[in-house]
Amino acid sequence: MKQVIVVNESLGLPCGKLAAQVAHASLGAFLQARYAEQSEWLASGMTKVVLAGASAEALLALQELAVAAELPEFLVQDAGRTVVAAGTVTCLGIGPAADQAVSAITGTLKLLT
Amino acid sequence: MKQVIVVNESLGLPCGKLAAQVAHASLGAFLQARYAEQSEWLASGMTKVVLAGASAEALLALQELAVAAELPEFLVQDAGRTVVAAGTVTCLGIGPAADQAVSAITGTLKLLT
Repeated sequence: MKQVIVVNESLGLPCGKLAAQVAHASLGAFLQARYAEQSEWLASGMTKVVLAGASAEALLALQELAVAAELPEFLVQDAGRTVVAAGTVTCLGIGPAADQAVSAITGTLKLLT
Repeated sequence: MKQVIVVNESLGLPCGKLAAQVAHASLGAFLQARYAEQSEWLASGMTKVVLAGASAEALLALQELAVAAELPEFLVQDAGRTVVAAGTVTCLGIGPAADQAVSAITGTLKLLT
């Protein structure tokens, strides 16, 4: 079981702001998961992987794939109170779900450094 | 209602690694909260603030204060598979809880940039 959070790298968000958005996506996708998925993931150590996405469009395309695969997912659009404009797509959480199911969608993306 | 995540800034973690640790602390502290606190925070937009802490010792001291105040809290110690040594204290989540209760503990810390 794992959860992946894909970040819209094109925004170049500062590290603290980015971390808050990633946490938002992580919790949002977690809350979309079924109880069995939540429990299994929590028991196995809540593996989270943060990946780099190229753009808002790239994140939206990944979201469509996650929806089609019936995986829990959560897209974060910033409220725009601080760094970016309201409605800006900052990141996408997918999972917790089986490793293979998540990797089938995000397997070609690189780790965010 | 808000949740604060205090990062051990002395580690100088790369942004992606840091974001995963912050998400871990956020979810961990959320799961420690009572249902009423969880619900109220979710309904009010899941406000999260990421702050800079000076060291592992600083985070442990904040954790003691949070425990004494009976706030939900979760300390993240990295499993050590990637960037840092196993057991390294990377961040601390406090809340969701009332703004004032959290600020009484973390009010002097600066935003992580």
